[in-house]
Amino acid sequence: MRSGTPRGPQVVALGGGHGLSASLRALRHVSERLTAVVTVADDGGSSGRLREELGVLPPGDLRMALAALTDDSDWGRTWSAVLQHRFRTDGPLDQHAVGNLLITALWELLGDTVTGLDWVGRLLGARGRVLPMASVPLVVEADVVGDDGTLRTVDGQVNVATAHGRIDHLRLHPADPPACEEAVAAVHAADWVVLGPGSWYSSVLVHLLVPRLCDALLSTKARRCVTLNLSPDAETSGLTAVDHLEVLHRHAPDLRIDVVLADPSAVEDVAAAERASAALGARLVMRQVALGDGTARHDALRLAAAYRDVFDGVLGDVGGP
Amino acid sequence: MRSGTPRGPQVVALGGGHGLSASLRALRHVSERLTAVVTVADDGGSSGRLREELGVLPPGDLRMALAALTDDSDWGRTWSAVLQHRFRTDGPLDQHAVGNLLITALWELLGDTVTGLDWVGRLLGARGRVLPMASVPLVVEADVVGDDGTLRTVDGQVNVATAHGRIDHLRLHPADPPACEEAVAAVHAADWVVLGPGSWYSSVLVHLLVPRLCDALLSTKARRCVTLNLSPDAETSGLTAVDHLEVLHRHAPDLRIDVVLADPSAVEDVAAAERASAALGARLVMRQVALGDGTARHDALRLAAAYRDVFDGVLGDVGGP
Repeated sequence: MRSGTPRGPQVVALGGGHGLSASLRALRHVSERLTAVVTVADDGGSSGRLREELGVLPPGDLRMALAALTDDSDWGRTWSAVLQHRFRTDGPLDQHAVGNLLITALWELLGDTVTGLDWVGRLLGARGRVLPMASVPLVVEADVVGDDGTLRTVDGQVNVATAHGRIDHLRLHPADPPACEEAVAAVHAADWVVLGPGSWYSSVLVHLLVPRLCDALLSTKARRCVTLNLSPDAETSGLTAVDHLEVLHRHAPDLRIDVVLADPSAVEDVAAAERASAALGARLVMRQVALGDGTARHDALRLAAAYRDVFDGVLGDVGGP
Repeated sequence: MRSGTPRGPQVVALGGGHGLSASLRALRHVSERLTAVVTVADDGGSSGRLREELGVLPPGDLRMALAALTDDSDWGRTWSAVLQHRFRTDGPLDQHAVGNLLITALWELLGDTVTGLDWVGRLLGARGRVLPMASVPLVVEADVVGDDGTLRTVDGQVNVATAHGRIDHLRLHPADPPACEEAVAAVHAADWVVLGPGSWYSSVLVHLLVPRLCDALLSTKARRCVTLNLSPDAETSGLTAVDHLEVLHRHAPDLRIDVVLADPSAVEDVAAAERASAALGARLVMRQVALGDGTARHDALRLAAAYRDVFDGVLGDVGGP
């Protein structure tokens, strides 16, 4: 336990999956007052099976966020590796992540989602808090326009994330889910809110569909940063950086953004991206934040440096073309 | 973490299941240098299924021993409760104990049984170390004489523990299993070794069937205490306290015992029990160690006081009739 006042701005990062983990691994370098708000619409893999068998929130994205915040010590690394460990068997435990089982057990035992996650955070010495975006499991549903122009409805995060075609409209079931109170409070108390990177529809935009969380994002005095993805995934194949911003604008027309953070490699048309950012009220900040090994992954330290610049208001075109 | 030299004698307690847990909950009051050596022949329940699905040592008895040694703090109590928690579902996770899954994951991840158990011990702040009696999963097999005098062979701990009839001979498969080196070393280094209480054949005597562990029990300079059960179970229905001692003698004729500890309620014929103890080289020490609520359970503090008297050599007939 370090002593003294926590350093850095109060930051809330919203997302899910690998995108949120990348964001958290960077943000932990620049803030000791960090809260992750995580999607709970996953219905695939170990999380999907636990959700089905035990009726709990899908724990996988929460587990990954906690692992990303783990204390860099022998203790933290070991327990994080245990929680991330997956069984490989020919039987019913195959592919279950141990942390998913542990989080589920804490929920059952303590009867409270946030308390259970805080206990895992304490186990890992997590450099921040991890909260669900809603207090009930959610189903995400999308209208998808196929290549032939036909409209169909797809439900479940796995199906949405892998749907062929253009996602036209995104909904949640239940349509008015209860937000996690602690997450709403964290957004109100934040200095900065960070949206993305991550699966644009099913991990990022989905937060805007939880009414009280969306209200908090609209009304908070925090400044808002949108971090764009490094490359399109199945959900967003064919979408440019500009398209990503326009989709965000369409899903939350009143949401004002202060900074759009992008890697130069992910922006085809800088002028157009600047205009799309400006339409959100934001300045486009370009920084080299990719790992640079040919994969579409963020480098934690480069992204940390970019967030520091954003939070400090050092927005010169360092990484621009 | 407490400072200073650990207090009390170096004690090794051998057993399994609830009997060993009762012993450990008492011994933790009188020794800060405590090692549990635990049977790994269980084939029932969650442990049996993990053994089958993942090929690991059955973790259940090891988990229970760790829980019995847990630090009495909010932290220790919470994690112990998590590890003891069992899922209740209509699906494949039903009845799995979370600690069994966690121990299994540590074994897979770290590749070493003892290191994995030590990590769980650190998590719980365990007041002692928990080791398996052998480093491979074992199958216990018994010849059982039925009420009609016919002899049959029963295998698996569950079947042996619930077999109707008198157990005539006990064997292990493999017959010459590798002992856990750390357990052998602990027996050699001990001041006192405690055998029982517990399922007499499948949790207590079974330790004598691991050749190097039995050798260590025979050759250690430690003194040896046998703690008798409070009442017969399915394995030992019809057996008196005297019979228990004679069965022990038959399975390890060269094993000398220093003290036989018994609750007065469990000894029908004191003179005969004294003679059977003497045949092992032991003094019979009678102490009221039962909970006294009508169940056949040991009271941790009464048993602790009895162990203290035994270790201190205060062997007067305090609890005798």
